[in-house]
Amino acid sequence: MVSHRRDFFLAYSPEREDPGNKEFSVATIPKVMGGLTDDCLRLTSNLYKNIVSETVEVSSLETAEATKLMENIFRAVNIAMVNELKLVLSRMGVNIWEVIDAAKTKPFGFMPFYPGPGMGGHCIPIDPFYLSWKAKEYNTEAKFIELAGEINRKMTENVAQRIGKALNDYKKSIRGSKILLVGVAYKKDIDDVRESPALRIMSLLEYKGAKINYHDPYVKNIRSLKSLDLTKSNIKEQDVIVITTDHTNIDYSALGKYAKLIVDTRNIMSTVKNSKARVLRA
Amino acid sequence: MVSHRRDFFLAYSPEREDPGNKEFSVATIPKVMGGLTDDCLRLTSNLYKNIVSETVEVSSLETAEATKLMENIFRAVNIAMVNELKLVLSRMGVNIWEVIDAAKTKPFGFMPFYPGPGMGGHCIPIDPFYLSWKAKEYNTEAKFIELAGEINRKMTENVAQRIGKALNDYKKSIRGSKILLVGVAYKKDIDDVRESPALRIMSLLEYKGAKINYHDPYVKNIRSLKSLDLTKSNIKEQDVIVITTDHTNIDYSALGKYAKLIVDTRNIMSTVKNSKARVLRA
Repeated sequence: MVSHRRDFFLAYSPEREDPGNKEFSVATIPKVMGGLTDDCLRLTSNLYKNIVSETVEVSSLETAEATKLMENIFRAVNIAMVNELKLVLSRMGVNIWEVIDAAKTKPFGFMPFYPGPGMGGHCIPIDPFYLSWKAKEYNTEAKFIELAGEINRKMTENVAQRIGKALNDYKKSIRGSKILLVGVAYKKDIDDVRESPALRIMSLLEYKGAKINYHDPYVKNIRSLKSLDLTKSNIKEQDVIVITTDHTNIDYSALGKYAKLIVDTRNIMSTVKNSKARVLRA
Repeated sequence: MVSHRRDFFLAYSPEREDPGNKEFSVATIPKVMGGLTDDCLRLTSNLYKNIVSETVEVSSLETAEATKLMENIFRAVNIAMVNELKLVLSRMGVNIWEVIDAAKTKPFGFMPFYPGPGMGGHCIPIDPFYLSWKAKEYNTEAKFIELAGEINRKMTENVAQRIGKALNDYKKSIRGSKILLVGVAYKKDIDDVRESPALRIMSLLEYKGAKINYHDPYVKNIRSLKSLDLTKSNIKEQDVIVITTDHTNIDYSALGKYAKLIVDTRNIMSTVKNSKARVLRA
C-alpha cells in the first residue's frame, strides 16, 4: 500500500447498471465506493453526492471491487444454474418456464432467473473470471464461477445442436440450410451485442455451412450482414428460425403464421396464439 | 401412466415453508399442485381452496415436484456460492459481510445470502440431490447441485480447521480443549437440529478429542449433552467459543465480556461493542 501525497487521492467506485431498465439511472442507483485512505473516500463521497442520491462507503478499494464482483457473480451463477436445470428438466419432459412461473409465486426466498442461449453483455460473462483467476494466486478456487462459465459455453453449443436435430427431422443438414436468427443483442430491448451468445451461435452455424441471416430492430449491421426485414416471403424461405433474444417489438405472430420451423430459446412463442409453425424450445 | 379409477384421484402438492418466518403461514403461502389427470387437479384445488388463500395449478405431478426442487436448489446453490466466496475473499483480506451489505444496496437483480458453517434443515441440504441423482438416470448432470453439496461439506471442515488454528495461536491442541458451541439449531430462532452443521462440527471436534459443550436456548438436549447456561464462569472456562447459529435471544455481550477466544461463523460479534474477547470470523 502506498500512502497518498498531499494532492493525489485514489478511490474506486464500480459501475452498477441494468441496461434497458427504465426505473433506475446512474443518479438513482446507490453508488458503492472505497478509498485508499479515509481522505480519499471522503473527497470521493463528497464529489458523488452532487450526482447520485445515495453513496455507499466501504472500507477499502478491494471491498468496493468485491461488491461489484459479488453482484455479477450472483447473476452469472444463477443464470447458468437455471440453464443447466433447463437441460436436465427438458430431458425429463418438464417445461422449465412453467416451473419458474410456479416457483416465483413463493413470496420469500426466491428470485426468478430465466434460461436462454447463454450469458451476454460486457459484465456478467467477463467480470466474475477476474476473481476466479485471482483466487488461484491465493491458492484457492472459485468453482461456482468456473462452472458458470462452463455451462454458458455449453448452452451455445446446445442451441446449435438443437437446430441440427430440428433440421434433421426434415431430412436437412445445417450445411446449405437457410437459418434466420431473431434478436442478436445480448438481452431484450437493447442494442448491445457485446459477448452476445447469438453471435457465437451465428459463428458455429456458419462454420457448419449454414446460410445465415438475422433480424434485430436494434442492430442494423453485424459483420457483413444487414438486419433482414421480417416480411412474409423472408420468413417463408427460411428452413429454420431461431429466436435468440426476445425483443418486445418483434412480430412473433408473423413468425407463427409464416415460419415452418422455429427453435425458441426464450419461450416467447408460447405467447403466440394459433401459431402454425412447428416450435421447439431450446 | 395409469389412469385414475372412478373413486381414486392422485395429486401432488409440495411443502413450501420458511421455519421461523412469522409473516407467512400455510394458509397465506400460495400452494403449488399438480394432478395425474385434470379431474385429480380440480378436486385437489377445490379441497385446498378451503385452506389456503391461493392455489397455483401446474400441468403435471412432475412439474409440481420440479417447482419445489427449483426453490430448494436456488437456496442451496446461493448459500454454497456465498460460502465459497467467503473462503476466497477472506484469503484476500476482504470481509464478505461488508461486501454483502454493500451489494444489497443494489435496488434490482440482487438477493443477499449469508455465509455460515454450512447448510442445514430437512429440505435444502437433501432435496436437491434427488434431482442430481435422477439426472444421471437421464444421462445428464446437475453440476451446480453437486458443487453445492461439495462446498457445504467443506464449510463444516473449514470451521473445525479454523478452531484448530485459533487454538494453535495459544499453543493449544483441539484434543483436551474445552469448546463451547453456541447455537446448534440449523438456523436462528428455531429449535430444529435436522442436518444442522453444528452437529457435524460437534462430531468432528469430539473425534479430535475436544471437551465439547453447547448452548442453545431452543435445544435442551443433544445426544448425552444438556444445554449449558451462559454464566460468567461457564464462559470463562472455555478455551474457545464457536458461534454456529446466531439466535436473537443469546447474550452476545456476555460472550464478548468473559470469553477469551471466539470463532464466529455468523459475524454476530460485530454487533457487540467493546468486546474484550479475541474474535475470529470463520
